[in-house]
Amino acid sequence: MGEEREKNRTNVTIYNQPYTIVGDESSEHIQEVAALIDTKMKELKHYNPYLDSTKLAVLTAVNIGNDYLSILKKLEDEKKDED
Amino acid sequence: MGEEREKNRTNVTIYNQPYTIVGDESSEHIQEVAALIDTKMKELKHYNPYLDSTKLAVLTAVNIGNDYLSILKKLEDEKKDED
Repeated sequence: MGEEREKNRTNVTIYNQPYTIVGDESSEHIQEVAALIDTKMKELKHYNPYLDSTKLAVLTAVNIGNDYLSILKKLEDEKKDED
Repeated sequence: MGEEREKNRTNVTIYNQPYTIVGDESSEHIQEVAALIDTKMKELKHYNPYLDSTKLAVLTAVNIGNDYLSILKKLEDEKKDED
């Protein structure tokens, strides 16, 4: 996924900026992802009003990356338990 | 998770900028998350050299958010199949 390739193109707005997201995923799915990022960035801004947009976006990525890696590890542990 | 609360404090570097991440997670886990974000941002920059740091960070969040929501949906579908 990224900008400027072929496949599905979905226009979204995240933290008041327009982005065109290109990938295999459905536009509906991409809109959900964009809404998640937008909400998290606004939440972080609320609690850390001094943060600039780049730091907000990086910390949002860290937040979601944390949830993502945690769930991956949980699944891995469950798989180990099954073996 | 965010900046400036109590609990574990972990210093990381993401895209050449220092961040202090605060949360319940282990420092090792946070370092892994930071490495994931750092790698993804550099990958995106490679393919989209014209993007500024904020857009790179937002698109990184979108990428990881996409993987995260996809896995959540997959787990939900599996749970439905079990019912």
